[in-house]
Amino acid sequence: MSGSPASAVLVVGSVALDSVETPFGKADNVLGGSGTFFASSASHFAPVQLVGVVGDDYPVDKLKPLETRGVDLSGLERTDGASFRWRGRYRHDLNSAETLETHLGVFSNFRPKIPAQFRNAPFVFLANIDPRLQLQVLEQVQKPTLVACDTMNFWIESRRPELIELLAHVDLITLNDAEARQLTEKVNLVHAARWIMEKGPRYVVIKKGEHGAYMFTRDSIFFAPAFPLESVFDPTGAGDSFAGGFIGYLAATNDLSERAMRRAVVVGSAMGSFAVEKFSNERVLEVSRAEIDARVQEFRQLVAFDMELT
Amino acid sequence: MSGSPASAVLVVGSVALDSVETPFGKADNVLGGSGTFFASSASHFAPVQLVGVVGDDYPVDKLKPLETRGVDLSGLERTDGASFRWRGRYRHDLNSAETLETHLGVFSNFRPKIPAQFRNAPFVFLANIDPRLQLQVLEQVQKPTLVACDTMNFWIESRRPELIELLAHVDLITLNDAEARQLTEKVNLVHAARWIMEKGPRYVVIKKGEHGAYMFTRDSIFFAPAFPLESVFDPTGAGDSFAGGFIGYLAATNDLSERAMRRAVVVGSAMGSFAVEKFSNERVLEVSRAEIDARVQEFRQLVAFDMELT
Repeated sequence: MSGSPASAVLVVGSVALDSVETPFGKADNVLGGSGTFFASSASHFAPVQLVGVVGDDYPVDKLKPLETRGVDLSGLERTDGASFRWRGRYRHDLNSAETLETHLGVFSNFRPKIPAQFRNAPFVFLANIDPRLQLQVLEQVQKPTLVACDTMNFWIESRRPELIELLAHVDLITLNDAEARQLTEKVNLVHAARWIMEKGPRYVVIKKGEHGAYMFTRDSIFFAPAFPLESVFDPTGAGDSFAGGFIGYLAATNDLSERAMRRAVVVGSAMGSFAVEKFSNERVLEVSRAEIDARVQEFRQLVAFDMELT
Repeated sequence: MSGSPASAVLVVGSVALDSVETPFGKADNVLGGSGTFFASSASHFAPVQLVGVVGDDYPVDKLKPLETRGVDLSGLERTDGASFRWRGRYRHDLNSAETLETHLGVFSNFRPKIPAQFRNAPFVFLANIDPRLQLQVLEQVQKPTLVACDTMNFWIESRRPELIELLAHVDLITLNDAEARQLTEKVNLVHAARWIMEKGPRYVVIKKGEHGAYMFTRDSIFFAPAFPLESVFDPTGAGDSFAGGFIGYLAATNDLSERAMRRAVVVGSAMGSFAVEKFSNERVLEVSRAEIDARVQEFRQLVAFDMELT
């Protein structure tokens, strides 16, 4: 990561207020949204440009720590109305969130406008928003080195043609295993990944939550486990924090070799593991570079084996 | 694996007839049982001594391939009555078997008698049978180097005190994640493994099926993913084939260092991945040493990354 300076990462996503209940406590109106989590995580590695929208009720001062970490908020629109709010609950197993309330607010009329100074960002992450908006972003940017997107079950159901169209224009997609199966109608993840690659992306990253993540390319499969944490406090934002570490690391190194991509998956997994240790983006923001490095080394220990069978 | 000859592995477990239905086909009255799967797999690495019982209806000639592979069947009792039969079905996701019928037959009166020539086997695997029988085996063997056991939900419910007693006498236990949670009443697998280690075993191997396996020791955690197969045909016996590869490899090397134990988990994972490629123990029996070595190398590629973050 020495040498050339880190490239900028443009992220377009939601900036929300979350109210979360887990077996360990509850938090009301804390920072949430895919854009927020991604930016918080990626900011450890590269300059981040965040595009999104909040209502006039948003506590923008709470975004100060992101600015301090080098996140450029000049693409964050503030408009009349209520901010996007999500309220959810995790049961004992922490595996899946139960959505109790979703209020899109100003987000329902959001049309992303990419500021001129962001349009040539070499790395672009289209966080989990309507595929039509993700496509609108791509019309405004200029030849990025890498375009990645995320999605979710809601868009797979309601915007399938637009999502398939999007796949033709991205280099990489991150999605979870259930979403991959839903999108491709394939139970087997190797088949699902191949189906997606045939639609466009060169890289398919399938996140399995506590069971780790796969990165598929045309001729290789890489797997990184999730870190076996002793206490998972709040899983919200783990996937976007993973993506932030992953894309942020690639932007930091400006290297898209298989070797760098594998490292990036591990860095993403490390960031995802920090995300779940506290509510909101709290732990991801405060974590030090030394702690990130230490966790990456722990990942190394977790899977390390040498083998001479014969 | 050169140098000293492989140690013998004694396995006490079920020898059954399975009838299995998967989305890809069905097989009636094929070889099944924890002892059969374990022995088939371990036989690639070490001499195996199998103790179990079959009824007078058992097609013992079907066990010939095990003998050919060096499995000593002189501890296999044949008695009047019906053999243990299991009939099960896997739905589309192949993750869990639905048991349609279980007939214990002669197995319900089984009292393991370890032949004199098996009693000093250095490696002992107590496959998934009644913990009271597992304890009876331990009364008959002489100071093994390593005693490992498996168990299942049925014994955790019905024989909890005996199972806890057993834990004090084994060095290693293999069980799946749901069983670990049920036994320990801990959701978190790190906590569950620690709880089990406090009861006796130095090694706790938690199998997560398609999500891989953890090996916990007092001061380390190792994780090996499951191999991302393109087609899983029949998951029956994957766990026992894993254990056979794992214990067989340890017996082959006579090495219980952390390094060897990690290798053993990977060899076990490789054998588990072969087990699911065909019905019964068919693929495990026929696989060549070169194919095993190649798959272990593929595991290496699957998790390999190098990392210098700073």
